[in-house]
Amino acid sequence: MHKKLFIPGPVEVLPEVLEKMATPMIGHRSKDASALQRGISDKLRKVFYTESEILLSTTSGSGLMEGAIRSCTAKRAAVFSIGAFGKRWYEMAVNNNVPADLFEVEFGQATSAKQVDEVLSTGKYDLITITHNETSTGVMNPVEDISKVLKKYPEVVWCVDAVSSAAGSKIEVDKLGIDICITSSQKCLGLPPGLAVCTFSQKAVERAKQVPARGYYLDLLSLYNYIQKKDYQYPSTPSLSHMFALDYQLDRILEEGIENRFARHIAMAEEVRAWAKKYFDLYSDEEHLSNTVTTVANTRNIDVSDLNKKLGERGFQISNGYGKLKDKTFRIAHMADCQIEDIRELLKNIEEILGL
Amino acid sequence: MHKKLFIPGPVEVLPEVLEKMATPMIGHRSKDASALQRGISDKLRKVFYTESEILLSTTSGSGLMEGAIRSCTAKRAAVFSIGAFGKRWYEMAVNNNVPADLFEVEFGQATSAKQVDEVLSTGKYDLITITHNETSTGVMNPVEDISKVLKKYPEVVWCVDAVSSAAGSKIEVDKLGIDICITSSQKCLGLPPGLAVCTFSQKAVERAKQVPARGYYLDLLSLYNYIQKKDYQYPSTPSLSHMFALDYQLDRILEEGIENRFARHIAMAEEVRAWAKKYFDLYSDEEHLSNTVTTVANTRNIDVSDLNKKLGERGFQISNGYGKLKDKTFRIAHMADCQIEDIRELLKNIEEILGL
Repeated sequence: MHKKLFIPGPVEVLPEVLEKMATPMIGHRSKDASALQRGISDKLRKVFYTESEILLSTTSGSGLMEGAIRSCTAKRAAVFSIGAFGKRWYEMAVNNNVPADLFEVEFGQATSAKQVDEVLSTGKYDLITITHNETSTGVMNPVEDISKVLKKYPEVVWCVDAVSSAAGSKIEVDKLGIDICITSSQKCLGLPPGLAVCTFSQKAVERAKQVPARGYYLDLLSLYNYIQKKDYQYPSTPSLSHMFALDYQLDRILEEGIENRFARHIAMAEEVRAWAKKYFDLYSDEEHLSNTVTTVANTRNIDVSDLNKKLGERGFQISNGYGKLKDKTFRIAHMADCQIEDIRELLKNIEEILGL
Repeated sequence: MHKKLFIPGPVEVLPEVLEKMATPMIGHRSKDASALQRGISDKLRKVFYTESEILLSTTSGSGLMEGAIRSCTAKRAAVFSIGAFGKRWYEMAVNNNVPADLFEVEFGQATSAKQVDEVLSTGKYDLITITHNETSTGVMNPVEDISKVLKKYPEVVWCVDAVSSAAGSKIEVDKLGIDICITSSQKCLGLPPGLAVCTFSQKAVERAKQVPARGYYLDLLSLYNYIQKKDYQYPSTPSLSHMFALDYQLDRILEEGIENRFARHIAMAEEVRAWAKKYFDLYSDEEHLSNTVTTVANTRNIDVSDLNKKLGERGFQISNGYGKLKDKTFRIAHMADCQIEDIRELLKNIEEILGL
């Protein structure tokens, strides 16, 4: 039996979107491929509220995260981490000999604009990375506040991991001044995993030109240059199946209305939060709750694996806590094309299983 | 109208394989994902005639080529190039600060065992890269001969780009002593692009341990370690759609019989070669013709773009020459699930269009 996914990616994909994954192949050096990829970039600019170029990468979001920090750090990177995926960005820097420092907060807390200001005021850094939405803790960082601080440091390239929030939560890339905003297909975009996308500002372009040895497959500047020269074709054969599905899904997203989509995510988040407070508690800092995934504190000390097993028998799947939070929390994602009725059905089933 | 692809990737994909690309999602940290990926690795070992570990990468073949040369060169790499994709491997080394030298031959020629022996006898190199099948020229390198030379240099890690040949032409990885044999989904495996696979020998594992700063997403040792620890799950979310389709397709391939599949590729190649000799000529060294793509010398000085346009109106697509060979050659690929009847139909249509 198929289990409906309420995990923070891969998400449940609509049947008509899945069907597009089965589109017959075309040549990746054809005019049709150019038109397809150019169209996707145009539509993604609307989702990201940006006029920056869009880069498409046949990788997971991690591929573009590595590409960003390696391609655009000329001096030193400041990595702000609020959980597992923030730490991953630091690991990427270290493994590529990119000079970087890691700034962490307690699990469940957010990065503050004040912390960013303090770090940048040292003058040591020319790139920072911020996790917009940390799925390991269910925290959404205050990128609007951080944005105000960053106006003071125009030399700094700002990279944002919006892997689990873009297209589900509003991120106005140009207004905020984000240089590289990264997401991947299997979260709020509502596609299968296998494709990552990012915005790439002119400031990022100019910075990358100063960085030697940026690698090949994940070199963002080489992707950028290639699509300019070759009308949105890419250096290596891309996942055309994902392109077909993404193109179709972006039409759906724009038809729903991007603001309506964000509102739907907030409504689903509020439903889950209210439920969590009624029966359990919220794990994360209440000032910075994620709109796309809720981390529930396991205050009743339930057996999370057992709950998930029983949910599985009913055709649902949620997530246990991440890493060291495995049994102390559980996570319910409300992303992509999930509807409030789906959330209510899931919560009702959890109540029945636990006898709440 | 859909054009049947006779280009050297992406290939025409069978409808029932495309359908598997639309399989509903599962969690990538589930037992089902482990079983799926473990099964794929087991089946690929048969295709590669190896007991080495198999690594799956959500990238094009270029991703794993870069990963191989970067992860496993401790001293210096010797890159043997017979065309565009060989040179790409050298570019990858340079862009990653991997010490490397490029050894080229004239376009249309093969790398000889003698050349490899001469280069390795200097003692400067601990890794070599060989292109098994070069789609830019239609040449297949004599890996059996090269293999004999390599037995003299047990410290050398041998990487082979079999992107456009594996699963279509026999490569006995263990018998030949290949350490990293790379292919990708959109060639002879007969899937859409978006997934790359390679073999990874114990020698390659030990070598990578000596190499610092191997990056993150393309670090082959980290992929290897992760799948050992996590029962064939990967560090980042992989393209599950490709996994479903690959698993299904590998069953088809093994059902056809891997030797039968190779024989079918040879039969198709012979058909195209005989036709090319009758009406045009072969571009490549006749001692080293590719079994998967034939490069036809444009001795009649036909307008290749015009031919392809007219073929397109009839529902077929071939390739012009690569790079500087654009108008001097054209290429007909005979890969994956293409049948000899398909080839005959294509050639008949070319004859009609050109009035041969």
